[in-house]
Amino acid sequence: MPYAAPDMPQGSEQLLLELFAIFVSAKVVGEVFERLNLPAVLGEILAGIGLGPYALGWIIPTDTIHSVAEIGAIFVLFSAGLETSPRDLISVGRKSLLVAGAGVVVPFILGFAYMKARGDVTHEAVFVGAAMVATSVGITARVLGDMRVLSTRTAKLILGAAVFDDILGMVLLAVVAGLASGSLEWLHLGILIGEAVTFALFMIFIAPRLVRRIEPQMERLSTQNASLIVALAICLLLSWLAAKIGIAAIIGAFFAGLMFADYAPRWNLLPRVAGITEFLAPYFFFAIGARLNIQLFSGDVLVAAIMISLLAIICVGIGMMPRGEVALIVALVGLQSRIVTQSTYAIVVFMTGVTTLLAPPLLRYLFRDEIPQDAENAEVASVQL
Amino acid sequence: MPYAAPDMPQGSEQLLLELFAIFVSAKVVGEVFERLNLPAVLGEILAGIGLGPYALGWIIPTDTIHSVAEIGAIFVLFSAGLETSPRDLISVGRKSLLVAGAGVVVPFILGFAYMKARGDVTHEAVFVGAAMVATSVGITARVLGDMRVLSTRTAKLILGAAVFDDILGMVLLAVVAGLASGSLEWLHLGILIGEAVTFALFMIFIAPRLVRRIEPQMERLSTQNASLIVALAICLLLSWLAAKIGIAAIIGAFFAGLMFADYAPRWNLLPRVAGITEFLAPYFFFAIGARLNIQLFSGDVLVAAIMISLLAIICVGIGMMPRGEVALIVALVGLQSRIVTQSTYAIVVFMTGVTTLLAPPLLRYLFRDEIPQDAENAEVASVQL
Repeated sequence: MPYAAPDMPQGSEQLLLELFAIFVSAKVVGEVFERLNLPAVLGEILAGIGLGPYALGWIIPTDTIHSVAEIGAIFVLFSAGLETSPRDLISVGRKSLLVAGAGVVVPFILGFAYMKARGDVTHEAVFVGAAMVATSVGITARVLGDMRVLSTRTAKLILGAAVFDDILGMVLLAVVAGLASGSLEWLHLGILIGEAVTFALFMIFIAPRLVRRIEPQMERLSTQNASLIVALAICLLLSWLAAKIGIAAIIGAFFAGLMFADYAPRWNLLPRVAGITEFLAPYFFFAIGARLNIQLFSGDVLVAAIMISLLAIICVGIGMMPRGEVALIVALVGLQSRIVTQSTYAIVVFMTGVTTLLAPPLLRYLFRDEIPQDAENAEVASVQL
Repeated sequence: MPYAAPDMPQGSEQLLLELFAIFVSAKVVGEVFERLNLPAVLGEILAGIGLGPYALGWIIPTDTIHSVAEIGAIFVLFSAGLETSPRDLISVGRKSLLVAGAGVVVPFILGFAYMKARGDVTHEAVFVGAAMVATSVGITARVLGDMRVLSTRTAKLILGAAVFDDILGMVLLAVVAGLASGSLEWLHLGILIGEAVTFALFMIFIAPRLVRRIEPQMERLSTQNASLIVALAICLLLSWLAAKIGIAAIIGAFFAGLMFADYAPRWNLLPRVAGITEFLAPYFFFAIGARLNIQLFSGDVLVAAIMISLLAIICVGIGMMPRGEVALIVALVGLQSRIVTQSTYAIVVFMTGVTTLLAPPLLRYLFRDEIPQDAENAEVASVQL
């Protein structure tokens, strides 16, 4: 596997050069994409594909870079959570669950059926179905934020459903892992679902109240930036806990963000967490691209990738949710734990790219009546710096 | 060497647990220190000593954690640079150089002579001398900032001299490396000194003008947070470049901060970079502690550590500069490249701890006439959150 780094401690010089090269190349291609009015995140993935081991081979991410990328993914979701109020999620909860249900059943069946019809083994088919269920909370939130419609009921409904879908996508991923190892233990699966649901309910209904209760104590802490430190500690704790119980770490990070969302402006968390995310996220998106073997896109795989993308676009139309970073993490987990082949990974990343590309214009079209009059100008102004 | 991690890629769960445990333990012990009116940074190092492989052995930092720690050190110095204006450095330049000269010659001779008298080999003695030359820009800046005297001429003089001393300390470290490898190549050393001086002069006199020139272009970039991204990219670039030419990466990071210092408020860099530093710095200080074998502190080594600390305190009295993170990095480089023994590393870390502990009250005493009337209250207020 050419993408695996040699297992040796890196020299400081080598590490710094790699950190610099990945950061700059991702940001430069991202800037080009922004200028073409395309999502910057796709540019960052493309930088990884182009410079990574399967194309030019100039930058081969090491284990350390992959760890940095993993921390980056956690901060992408933590930031997204910080901008989502749990009260809003609760207020649209029941409807969200309905939308989420549609967002699970339809994409899963479409993805699973197509892959099976193509002759793939069951666990590869379930995997693609799971990846189509997992959505992109980050990209969705960013597009809705850019359109300045985040406070509308529809936007909250979409984000709420996206969170539920991501949890369900993770549960499906656990099913795939069970299938791939030959035996699906129903008891194990039941425990996982129970843990995931308990975790989600606790984080949405109880955790924010705990934060309200500990807030007065916070001011007694002598440490500078105590609020940021407590938020970071809980983000790391919940990420680990989520990984521990078998749902992805990033889901824990998202819930940690949700927990502090109502206090983020008062504690001035947003700019400081945004700084961390801005620094670490490019490593995640670059790493995603660097693991993609573009040489696989010929014949069968290309046809499958296009078909799965078309099916995913239908799902975006139904649930209004692009498939993004959670789908990518599902794909990565699948590849790393050798549940699926490189081809299947390639199909999922391709599908994610296509829906990420098409989701913003689609979302804009769907929200055309709700976009505030001054949104266009405001957006231009915010881009100035 | 028990502190070296096994060379295997870490599972996500394991990495997250370690990130969480180190962050929280460092911050908790730091909080205890703050409450005792001691520098929090010493608490973070103590957490590493106590939980690390040489004491309780609960947390053994892996290669990944050491890389994160290294990035943390870079951001500690980048933040310090962002808060130091290059114009101020230039305005006190000549006097700074004189102070810096005293800050090199006196500590080096004291450290070198004592170690030689003790019977150590020449390169160990030069190493301890070098570590006593290297100062603590970060701790000095923080103490002076807490006292609200950063804008005074004396404070700028001290910081300026600290920067020059750190560069000279790095050059001395290169001498040690040459001595340890058996042959000191004078040509090589001359080139290193030339490169270091050119680098420093360029960064102080020319780089800030370049930033002024590129600023108007910045607004044309479509990328969100363009100013932060450019600053981070240059920080990584200069860190790598500094490591490449043989002075420490953190000196490059400090100069990168210096370059953007005048624009930091307008570009809103401070809170966002502070977020990154706040997250990553504890890993650096914890790792410093985790590498310290406390069992070595008995008999000879303890006596030497106390003597070197007393000599260093005299130097703080002369140059007003505690020995801190740069000395620690000199120590780490020495240990990692096996130039010096664990005992010598222990002596240097001990000395750093003692001067860091004593420098704040000493600095406060030296500045007693310049502290603004409201500084005490202002400090109390800023600690509230």
